[in-house]
Amino acid sequence: MNGKQMALEMSEQPERLRALIARAPQIAQQVRALIPEPFNGVTIVARGSSDHAAVYGRYLIEAATGKPVSLAAPSLHTLYQVPADYRGQLVIAISQSGATPEIVQTLQTLQQAGGRGLGITNEDASPLVQAADATIVLEMGRELAVPATKTVTGQLVAMAIIAGALTAADCGQPGLAGIPDWIQQVLRDPEPAAQVAASLAGSSQLVVAARGYMYAAALETALKIKETCYLVAEGYSVADLRHGPIAAVTSGVPVLALTNPGPSQADVLSLAADLRSREVPVYLVAPTDGADVRLPAGIPEQLAPIAATVCGQQIAHQLALALGHDPDTPKGLNKVTMT
Amino acid sequence: MNGKQMALEMSEQPERLRALIARAPQIAQQVRALIPEPFNGVTIVARGSSDHAAVYGRYLIEAATGKPVSLAAPSLHTLYQVPADYRGQLVIAISQSGATPEIVQTLQTLQQAGGRGLGITNEDASPLVQAADATIVLEMGRELAVPATKTVTGQLVAMAIIAGALTAADCGQPGLAGIPDWIQQVLRDPEPAAQVAASLAGSSQLVVAARGYMYAAALETALKIKETCYLVAEGYSVADLRHGPIAAVTSGVPVLALTNPGPSQADVLSLAADLRSREVPVYLVAPTDGADVRLPAGIPEQLAPIAATVCGQQIAHQLALALGHDPDTPKGLNKVTMT
Repeated sequence: MNGKQMALEMSEQPERLRALIARAPQIAQQVRALIPEPFNGVTIVARGSSDHAAVYGRYLIEAATGKPVSLAAPSLHTLYQVPADYRGQLVIAISQSGATPEIVQTLQTLQQAGGRGLGITNEDASPLVQAADATIVLEMGRELAVPATKTVTGQLVAMAIIAGALTAADCGQPGLAGIPDWIQQVLRDPEPAAQVAASLAGSSQLVVAARGYMYAAALETALKIKETCYLVAEGYSVADLRHGPIAAVTSGVPVLALTNPGPSQADVLSLAADLRSREVPVYLVAPTDGADVRLPAGIPEQLAPIAATVCGQQIAHQLALALGHDPDTPKGLNKVTMT
Repeated sequence: MNGKQMALEMSEQPERLRALIARAPQIAQQVRALIPEPFNGVTIVARGSSDHAAVYGRYLIEAATGKPVSLAAPSLHTLYQVPADYRGQLVIAISQSGATPEIVQTLQTLQQAGGRGLGITNEDASPLVQAADATIVLEMGRELAVPATKTVTGQLVAMAIIAGALTAADCGQPGLAGIPDWIQQVLRDPEPAAQVAASLAGSSQLVVAARGYMYAAALETALKIKETCYLVAEGYSVADLRHGPIAAVTSGVPVLALTNPGPSQADVLSLAADLRSREVPVYLVAPTDGADVRLPAGIPEQLAPIAATVCGQQIAHQLALALGHDPDTPKGLNKVTMT
């Protein structure tokens, strides 16, 4: 039987995240001590799955602070070594292993350029911990399956804690304590994900669409499916999808749409209806009646991407098995990337 | 015969860009007058093809200023209406039509939040011109084919002019005056692109890969192929490709790799060799012997993406024709998007 390790690590998420969330007050203190004065903005440095935590943080932290949040272009600092002036910036570097050289090097460069550096990693004794002014160690336990699962949701929760710490109101991230139970609810019933996976098993391509806060979960779900199932799966903002690629979609590629009640939902549901009227198969991950995979009801919109990411893990895991692949060890992938 | 309009608009690029480049000194003056004091960073607002000009500008402007450059998340300002503090930011909004409501609304919001706003558009009397503190009107002439070509290279050249204006050295963008001739050289010989298109005509999927400055040209080429050929074509940074999706690629999807001499080239050529050793078909766009499509020699690395974008237009145009589609009017696409 394949995929046991990935399933085991997925199942550890509620307990591990509960322990991380219990540390939120200390982490928030650590983050607030790093805020530069004047405080001009935030830059996030990441690659791969960590890049999706960066996209999630990009939305949450800008919503919390009102200040511009940028995703670093590491090649500017590693390959091109451009001069940098990052005074007034909080620089957050995310690396599951803490060992990806370009992430560590970019953080060091931006700290030397005046930025205050915060690392997020799962590895206590990693180069990232050595390099950063301060680090949040996720303590998700060792991850042996190649597709990252619990370290990804750990990163997402860390971003929510950081955003809570940076709000002017200083009231934390409302609803965060509910996350472990919501994820437990998702994990308790893998059947809906298995059914979606069975329907997708004949496709060579897949689009994963969402909008706003949920966009990061669409990117992460697409990557997880790509990694484990050898499909061309792409994550899209619904707004970008309308701008062009919809032509490719309407020629028959199935769409997995993620959404949660909130200002972005009308857009996603209207795209889903539009695609269905063109006979594109659409599978909905949402807390509503008629959804193919039900998200738990009542999750605040800002936190729903964390639960939706777990639904995406379930779909990727089941689809890999349905296609006869071992999701634990996809070919062509390593855990640490040297670039 | 299909695709005539797109071909006509592609052919206008050298002359139109020459006129735009001739205005560089005045544009630079206009840009420098907008720089806030203190100057903390730059935010770029865009969607679709314009988003690729934004990615290009993101690299060039950070290389020129050393300051963080972010790409706005428009939904934060349109759907969620989060509080914003953009004092010290230069905000650049790019829209071919100048009429995409969310781009105009986001620019207005960020100006009200203290940012200095610069519009880039092809439409003189558009809402974007009304809204922005200052605007660069590209004057590329009307674009009737749905896939944007000359307005895209116009946007890319505008970003190069802006980056030149923002360099501390104030010496403009070296080599910019050569762009029209380099593009003319590409356009004079469409045969290599036609041959690559013929080789790609049997594929339902395609990856376009590049690194560093060239990354924006990979994104734009993928979008152009997606729009005109109904293929799932995706642009990737070589670094991101190594982080995961390479598993999907090695199962047989062809790769179009764009590169130019400079610090990023070794990475791209090493990936190409790696993929070829796994029997993945790789097509190279580069100024080197053995390239499938030859870029003109001697283009500075920062400007090579503009010429490579024209190679990508040629490949998209030829591939659409080879597949029996009319590239002028892809189904499911509009010129202005309402989100």
